[in-house]
Amino acid sequence: MQLERFIRDIPDFPKEGIVFKDITPLLADADALRASVEQMAEQVKDLNPDVLLGIESRGFLFGAALAVNMGLGLLIARKPGKLPYEKDSVSYDLEYGSATLELHVDAVKKGQRVLIIDDLLATGGTAAATAKLVEKQGGQVAGFAFVIELGFLEGRNKLTPHPVKYLLKY
Amino acid sequence: MQLERFIRDIPDFPKEGIVFKDITPLLADADALRASVEQMAEQVKDLNPDVLLGIESRGFLFGAALAVNMGLGLLIARKPGKLPYEKDSVSYDLEYGSATLELHVDAVKKGQRVLIIDDLLATGGTAAATAKLVEKQGGQVAGFAFVIELGFLEGRNKLTPHPVKYLLKY
Repeated sequence: MQLERFIRDIPDFPKEGIVFKDITPLLADADALRASVEQMAEQVKDLNPDVLLGIESRGFLFGAALAVNMGLGLLIARKPGKLPYEKDSVSYDLEYGSATLELHVDAVKKGQRVLIIDDLLATGGTAAATAKLVEKQGGQVAGFAFVIELGFLEGRNKLTPHPVKYLLKY
Repeated sequence: MQLERFIRDIPDFPKEGIVFKDITPLLADADALRASVEQMAEQVKDLNPDVLLGIESRGFLFGAALAVNMGLGLLIARKPGKLPYEKDSVSYDLEYGSATLELHVDAVKKGQRVLIIDDLLATGGTAAATAKLVEKQGGQVAGFAFVIELGFLEGRNKLTPHPVKYLLKY
């Protein structure tokens, strides 16, 4: 299935000069959504994850659907103040300023192979920070899977030596 | 399957006197996650939705997994500033202050039956606001489905006359 047809380019979002890849048409189409999840499952099965981890908030969409498809559980990394129990946290630099992600302290089991899911790989900062959280809790990063990789931003360089999978690359 | 076992009570979150229902143990357990999605699908099938709508951000988790399970597409209602294309928006009152939700203008097709998904029904303000967005775009609200209903808050009164489904009630 030609998933590219379901990605809409939005010029100058979130700011001038950026062309945003809008995945809402893909989500809204039953066949494209199911095909995305099935193709992702096929791509990552050799990574043998024990559990998936979805990054707030669009990583929740594909993380949850993929977890059910693969018969695995889902951990969630969230923005500050959202998770109710005790947390580990990691801060990382953005182009301007910084951001923080949190994970419940009892999320990752020792030695667990964790596959990290998000909709988009851009500069890789968020995904790399999430990997640090997983390792801090004694987990192994099985790899990363994205719907879209913006290859020209070379974000995957921040994710070595872990495998990085994607459905669409620009 | 006894899904209650996977809900963790967190006292005094997000503020004193509130007992927060933490769904992260349910998400993290492969069997509980799959059973939740399958039970939700069973509960809502008679509502004959054409499409699901997940409310940011925990509604994305069950919305996406349920959409794939049911062979439907997923629309997403987001917090302000997140959606990249032209939007409709609705504001609603919270206990203190107000909140806004947005939906792309081309999300709902005329006459479409839209099933609204979130993790928790509390006072019902967010779900009722989402229903307004659906109706503004010419859709029909097929109903609402939640993982948890806090029955003592009587939020379902804000959602009449639409059907309200849930997996767990407190």
